[in-house]
Amino acid sequence: MTAYNCMSRQALEEEYQKVLSQYDDCKRQNLNLNIARGKPSSAQLDLVMDMLTTITDIDDCIADGVDTRNYGELSGLQCAKDYWASILGCKSNEIFVGGGSSLTLMYDVISKAFTHGLRRSERPWCKEEKIRFLCPSPGYDRHFMVTESFGCELVMVPMTVEGPNMDMVEELIQDPAVKGIWCVPKYSNPDGIIYSDETISRLANMKPAAPDFVIMWDNAYCVHEFEGDFVPFKDIITLCRDAGRPEMVFEFASTSKITFPGSGISCMASSVDNIAYMTKLMGIQMISYNKLNQIRHVRYLKDKENTLALMKRHAAILAPKFEMVTSILDREIKPLEFATWVKPKGGYFISFNTMPGTAKRALALCKEAGLTMTSAGATFPYGIDPNDSNIRIAPSLPPLNELKTAMGVFCTCLKLAALEKLLA
Amino acid sequence: MTAYNCMSRQALEEEYQKVLSQYDDCKRQNLNLNIARGKPSSAQLDLVMDMLTTITDIDDCIADGVDTRNYGELSGLQCAKDYWASILGCKSNEIFVGGGSSLTLMYDVISKAFTHGLRRSERPWCKEEKIRFLCPSPGYDRHFMVTESFGCELVMVPMTVEGPNMDMVEELIQDPAVKGIWCVPKYSNPDGIIYSDETISRLANMKPAAPDFVIMWDNAYCVHEFEGDFVPFKDIITLCRDAGRPEMVFEFASTSKITFPGSGISCMASSVDNIAYMTKLMGIQMISYNKLNQIRHVRYLKDKENTLALMKRHAAILAPKFEMVTSILDREIKPLEFATWVKPKGGYFISFNTMPGTAKRALALCKEAGLTMTSAGATFPYGIDPNDSNIRIAPSLPPLNELKTAMGVFCTCLKLAALEKLLA
Repeated sequence: MTAYNCMSRQALEEEYQKVLSQYDDCKRQNLNLNIARGKPSSAQLDLVMDMLTTITDIDDCIADGVDTRNYGELSGLQCAKDYWASILGCKSNEIFVGGGSSLTLMYDVISKAFTHGLRRSERPWCKEEKIRFLCPSPGYDRHFMVTESFGCELVMVPMTVEGPNMDMVEELIQDPAVKGIWCVPKYSNPDGIIYSDETISRLANMKPAAPDFVIMWDNAYCVHEFEGDFVPFKDIITLCRDAGRPEMVFEFASTSKITFPGSGISCMASSVDNIAYMTKLMGIQMISYNKLNQIRHVRYLKDKENTLALMKRHAAILAPKFEMVTSILDREIKPLEFATWVKPKGGYFISFNTMPGTAKRALALCKEAGLTMTSAGATFPYGIDPNDSNIRIAPSLPPLNELKTAMGVFCTCLKLAALEKLLA
Repeated sequence: MTAYNCMSRQALEEEYQKVLSQYDDCKRQNLNLNIARGKPSSAQLDLVMDMLTTITDIDDCIADGVDTRNYGELSGLQCAKDYWASILGCKSNEIFVGGGSSLTLMYDVISKAFTHGLRRSERPWCKEEKIRFLCPSPGYDRHFMVTESFGCELVMVPMTVEGPNMDMVEELIQDPAVKGIWCVPKYSNPDGIIYSDETISRLANMKPAAPDFVIMWDNAYCVHEFEGDFVPFKDIITLCRDAGRPEMVFEFASTSKITFPGSGISCMASSVDNIAYMTKLMGIQMISYNKLNQIRHVRYLKDKENTLALMKRHAAILAPKFEMVTSILDREIKPLEFATWVKPKGGYFISFNTMPGTAKRALALCKEAGLTMTSAGATFPYGIDPNDSNIRIAPSLPPLNELKTAMGVFCTCLKLAALEKLLA
C-alpha cells in the first residue's frame, strides 16, 4: 500500500473507486453497530453478578453499627469511605460517598458553585460577569457540557502526551475569571494517556488568581488497566494538601466500570473543610444516598487488592478488543499515512486523528452505513474540533465479531472521506 | 384533673412542684430517645427484606428488552414509569423515575429553575430581583429549606383543615415574584390532613401572574394510610392538564416509606413537555439512575394492589404507635386544656399545638431529659413559629415501650413549660 499523499491523482481516483465500492458493500449489509460510548459489554457485567446476592439477611445490612436500610449517614458509610480512600490514596475523612453517578457529583460541585459559591468564593458564580473554564482537548464531552450548560466560557487547552499544556494553563489561571479545569488524569478520555508526575505536580502547585479555582479531577479510570499491572498514581488530594492549597481540588471516581454502570457507587474527595462544606449543602437536597448499595459494594469488592483482581478479569475481556482495533488500524490505515493514534494500556477509548478536515464526513459516512460513533467534535468544547480530525473510538461494548465488522466499516469510511478531500 | 387556666395560683404552684419532681425523675433515668424524624422502624424494614433477593440472575435484569445492568434509560425504565403512573393516577409518559430520594428531584427542579429557568420562565430565577415562595405552615422543614437555601423569600400561608388558606393563596399569586407553593396534599406533614377536593380544584385552576409558577406537590404519603382503607385521591397532574395549565405542577413520590428509606426509587410527574424539558437538563448531570434498583422495586412491589397490601402490613406496625401517642395525650394533657392535636389516619406525624409561647421551652426541657424531637419552629419558614406553639411528633421509629417512655417525658415537659409560663 502507498501513502495517500504519495499517490498520483490517477492512483487516487482508482483507489477512490475501489473504496467507494467497498463502502457500497458495507451499506448493503444494513448494519446496526455502536461504538459511541464507553459502555462495558454484557460479558463484563456477567463477571459481577454475585454482587446482587451479597446482601440478603438483616445482619448483612448492619455496618459499623449502622442499619444501612434506614435514613442517615449523608456523607456515606465509614466502610465505603475507607474503601474509596484506599483506592484513591487519600484519607477517609477526605471522602464523600455518593450515588450511582460521579458525573452527578461533578455537576453538584459546579451547580453549587453557581448558586451558593464554593467555600472560598467571594460570591456565587451566577453573580459573576463571566466564568471561564479550562477544557484540555481532546477531552470528555460530558465534562464540557456541564460547564457549558451553566454558561461558562470554555477555554480550549491542547493536550500533550504528558497531560494539558501546562505553560498555557499557568498563563491562563492568572485571569481571575478562570475558575477551574477539567482533568481525566489517568487513561485520559479520549487520549488514554497518564498525566506525567511533572504535570500533576505543576497542577497541584498552581497559584490561580481566582481564590475559588477548582481542579475537577475525574479519576474515572483509576484502576482500569487492561494491559499490564496496576500503575501507581500520585494522589492529587495529598499533593494539593502538601502544596498548601488543599481546597483547590475535587477528585471523583465511581464503580460504573468496575461493577454496574449507573448502579454502582461514586465518591468525591477533597479537603476535610471542602467535604464539610459540600456535605452541608448536599444535606439540603438529600437525606442519605443508597447505603444498601454502598454496603453491597464494600462487601463484594472488599478492598483495593480484590478490586484489582476483578479489574484483571475485566482486562481479559477488554484487551482483545483494543488489540483488534489497533491491529486493524495498523493494517488498513497506517500504511496510508493520513492518520495517527496511540494504543493505550487502560481506560475505555482510543483517540484517533484522521486527515484534518475529514472527521465529520467520515462519521457521516459511518452513520449512513449503520455504524454509530461519538459525534465528530464531541471531544472539543462546544463540539467544535478546530481541525475536524479527532474521533473517539469506544471498543468496549460490542462482542469481537461485531467490533471487527465495525472497524471494517470505519476504515472504509475514513479512506473514503480522505480520498474525497484529496480529490476535491 | 382541672384545666390549667381554671386553676388558682396556689393550685398551679402545687402542680408545678409536682410536675417538677416528675421531671427530675425523668432526668435521673439518663434517657436517650428520639422521635424527631419520620423514620420507619426496624420492624417495618424487616417486612421488605425479600426485596433484596428479587434480582439474582441475568434474566432478572432484563426489562422490556433493556439490560438494566448497563447505562441508559435516563428517564427511567418503562415498567417503573408504569408502576408510578398507576400509583399516582397519571399517565406513564408524565413520569420521570429518579434515584433514592424524591427530595433530590424537588431540589433539582428548584435548582434548575434558578440556573436555567423552568420551561415557561422568562429568565433563570437567579436573574430575578426577588423570588417569593408560598409555604403553607405548619409544613415540612426540608421543603422550606430548599427554597430558603436559594435565597427565596418564604411567605407563610396558614394551613386549615382543608389545606392551605386558598383565599390567601389566590391573592398572593397575583404577585409575579411569587413563583411557587410547597404542598404535601395527603396526610400533610405535619398536620396529617388530606387537602379537600375544593382546595385541590382551586389549586389546579389557579391563574398565577408568574408564567413559570410551580406547584411543588410532594405526594409523600400517597399510599400511607395506617387506619382504614386506601383513600382515593384526585390526581393533580390530570387536574392541571384538564385546567389547561398542565405545566404548573411537579408531583413527587418515593418508596422511602414503602421499602427502604433512601435506598428506594423516587419519581417526579408533570406534563409531557415539562418531563421532556427536565429530562434534557437532567441529561447533563447523569447518564442514568440505578435501574437495577428500579427493576428490583417493580418486581417486588408489582402493582398498586400489591403495594396497598404491603402498606397494610406497615399500618399494623404504625397504628398502635399513633394510638399510644394520642391515648397518652388524651389522658395526660387533654383535661388540662392548654393544647390541641388531631389524630391522623395516615402519614408519619402528629401535629401538636401546645400553649402559645411554650413550645421552645418544652422541647428544651425534653432535650435536657434525653428526648430528641423535631426542633420547635421547624414546621415554619425560617424555623420561626410566630406562636411558638407547634410541635411535630414522629412516633414511627421507636418500639412501643420506648415510645411510651418518650411520651411520658414529653407530657411532663409540656406541663412544666406551661406552668412556668402561667406562673411567670
